[in-house]
Amino acid sequence: MTWFRNILQITSFKSSFNQKHTYPSSQIIYTTRFFIRNFTSESFQTTPSPSSSPSVSNTITSGLEPTKPNEKPRVVVLGSGWAGCRLMKGLDTNIYDVVCVSPRNHMVFTPLLASTCVGTLEFRSVAEPIGRIQPAISTAPGSYFFLANCKGIDTDKHEIKCETVTDGADSVPPWNFKIAYDKLVIASGAEASTFGIKGVKEHAIFLREVSHAQEIRRKLLLNLMLSDVPGISKEEKSRLLHCVVIGGGPTGVEFSGELSDFIKKDVHERYAHVKDYIHVTLIEANEILSSFDVRLREYATKQLTKSGVRLVHGVVKEVQPQKIILNDGTEVPYGLLVWSTGVGPSNFIKATELPKSPGGRYILHSIGLVTTLKLHTIFFLKCNVHALLPHKEGLPI
Amino acid sequence: MTWFRNILQITSFKSSFNQKHTYPSSQIIYTTRFFIRNFTSESFQTTPSPSSSPSVSNTITSGLEPTKPNEKPRVVVLGSGWAGCRLMKGLDTNIYDVVCVSPRNHMVFTPLLASTCVGTLEFRSVAEPIGRIQPAISTAPGSYFFLANCKGIDTDKHEIKCETVTDGADSVPPWNFKIAYDKLVIASGAEASTFGIKGVKEHAIFLREVSHAQEIRRKLLLNLMLSDVPGISKEEKSRLLHCVVIGGGPTGVEFSGELSDFIKKDVHERYAHVKDYIHVTLIEANEILSSFDVRLREYATKQLTKSGVRLVHGVVKEVQPQKIILNDGTEVPYGLLVWSTGVGPSNFIKATELPKSPGGRYILHSIGLVTTLKLHTIFFLKCNVHALLPHKEGLPI
Repeated sequence: MTWFRNILQITSFKSSFNQKHTYPSSQIIYTTRFFIRNFTSESFQTTPSPSSSPSVSNTITSGLEPTKPNEKPRVVVLGSGWAGCRLMKGLDTNIYDVVCVSPRNHMVFTPLLASTCVGTLEFRSVAEPIGRIQPAISTAPGSYFFLANCKGIDTDKHEIKCETVTDGADSVPPWNFKIAYDKLVIASGAEASTFGIKGVKEHAIFLREVSHAQEIRRKLLLNLMLSDVPGISKEEKSRLLHCVVIGGGPTGVEFSGELSDFIKKDVHERYAHVKDYIHVTLIEANEILSSFDVRLREYATKQLTKSGVRLVHGVVKEVQPQKIILNDGTEVPYGLLVWSTGVGPSNFIKATELPKSPGGRYILHSIGLVTTLKLHTIFFLKCNVHALLPHKEGLPI
Repeated sequence: MTWFRNILQITSFKSSFNQKHTYPSSQIIYTTRFFIRNFTSESFQTTPSPSSSPSVSNTITSGLEPTKPNEKPRVVVLGSGWAGCRLMKGLDTNIYDVVCVSPRNHMVFTPLLASTCVGTLEFRSVAEPIGRIQPAISTAPGSYFFLANCKGIDTDKHEIKCETVTDGADSVPPWNFKIAYDKLVIASGAEASTFGIKGVKEHAIFLREVSHAQEIRRKLLLNLMLSDVPGISKEEKSRLLHCVVIGGGPTGVEFSGELSDFIKKDVHERYAHVKDYIHVTLIEANEILSSFDVRLREYATKQLTKSGVRLVHGVVKEVQPQKIILNDGTEVPYGLLVWSTGVGPSNFIKATELPKSPGGRYILHSIGLVTTLKLHTIFFLKCNVHALLPHKEGLPI
């Protein structure tokens, strides 16, 4: 009857489908678990898109209603970067409910992102889930993380409109909802600057998100393998293995250094057939690390040159699929192109009606601390300030 | 003059572009480096596709010519699975040159793949680069790894035709080349069986490659986050968080167990808002683990049921984007669908003209050892044999 007992467990679908099961506490020892969502770094959008989902109550009236007097005030944080995460970590969740709205469910430790492109660090080492930064978001009844883009702010009604990020899933259409806020913190970050140069968005890879680092690693390894295939000309090998970095700021310099270390160590060991073809070029319009002290600039220049990175003075005019064209007409063939020329205001910030500087950034005046949360309603955060900037006070950030 | 010295390093592009640099030996201590290419698990294809690349000598005549009498004989291995990797690891590279052709640059430790879907293990823990399994491939002058699909075998000329895998890179068209072999080892593996059921390839996820595990993890986390959004009905939450596994073999059972552990531990801790909506259902047409001893089957059934996995007896008729239809007409809504119903012969194997059994697999007779490499020219490898099967001897594998 062993067979029969065994079969009994395999009940028919209809009878078991609505059955509830209890989950006994697990005795299994878990290894470290860490979850990173690899969303494309979609920025906050401003134009609402129509959505439909028959099985979902998808009217814009659905969402989180205004808090009642006997409830904790709700702090809504837009963004999951340095500033937003620092704020959420420091918030007293006995006093406030926290709602984070972001298209990314983790914070990225950006200074080490360049190291992940070549495997010095693993991707998971530079990302921290929001739920671990502020655990109340995972468990407290009034605190949430919503994987969504903010589509608009209604400062009169004290509410924001959001649309879910469905990451290209065909079976889940995006849908809209609103969130009423008591305090709104805008920490949605900036966007990579392309200066309107043709072809940058299509052919270059930025270095601001984990997904960018993954794409760089993927392309680098693909090019290393493709260049080893029989019949590839020397010119094509050199092109495939020419890694070009545009922008001599901290990110570009750090990445160039990591890449040259990778070449010296890993390429020579593991891709010995093509090791003489791979090169790194860093193109900068002015000086590298121009905002740093001159001794640091000198040191970086010396180290990069010593490592085999070619430092080139030039301004990019256009980016084509296999080559860059500089302002002086020089053509630079490339296999991997990383674009790191600083940031500018995002489309979301540009589209909001709150006061902005001529450059399109918010105008603020004084820098408050987290305690100022009591006095104001809307706050802006910048990643290197680590403090709250109350709305409408005159200082461009 | 510090400024001037600094600028001097930033030479104009033209003068520095052809300059050679030497790479001094690095003093930097490296953390563990490990590279996994996340190609989609493209199987070996048989229909050649036209390709063009103006800068590449891309005629089918390019490739590796036949070895000369004073050169080491060339062993060409098709595939980078268990069998191919075991062979390459054991080959004496003082006697043979090794050339591996595969669309995947790593071997996957498949028994632990299910654990990576929920983060019990990291993806890199179940993948080993080919260059580490057989280091000669990275360094020896006549040994190579080619990231390519085999498109055909010419047994008369002793050569194979290949096409590079470019992984969707727009700037690198695929190109063709040929490889002459002295010994050819066919270890290209099988393909996931769908039994021709409509919608499986479009909507279900297999569990045979690292990229599949990544897609499962991505979708699981996406559904967990989407189900927490305000305005989602209870039915939609239940659908999004219903994980259905088709096939009660070792992979399906292992994955169901991992998933239920994940729910008990991580979902209850980190996604507490939706923890009551997530369920796992395992659908099997016969018995789970049918090829195992009855005591093992009983134990697995008991453990799965105890963990909250619903075991369902049923045959899938059709898969739609949000629901499965069983043969008895039952509709099973799902948010995540994992398909694990065994394997069948690949298109590549079907298209070759070597003798096959009625089921489409190769016919072989005796099982040789690696030493038989001296006697035969073409060999077939199956992952659970770990030995060479000389061509044309009558035993279906």
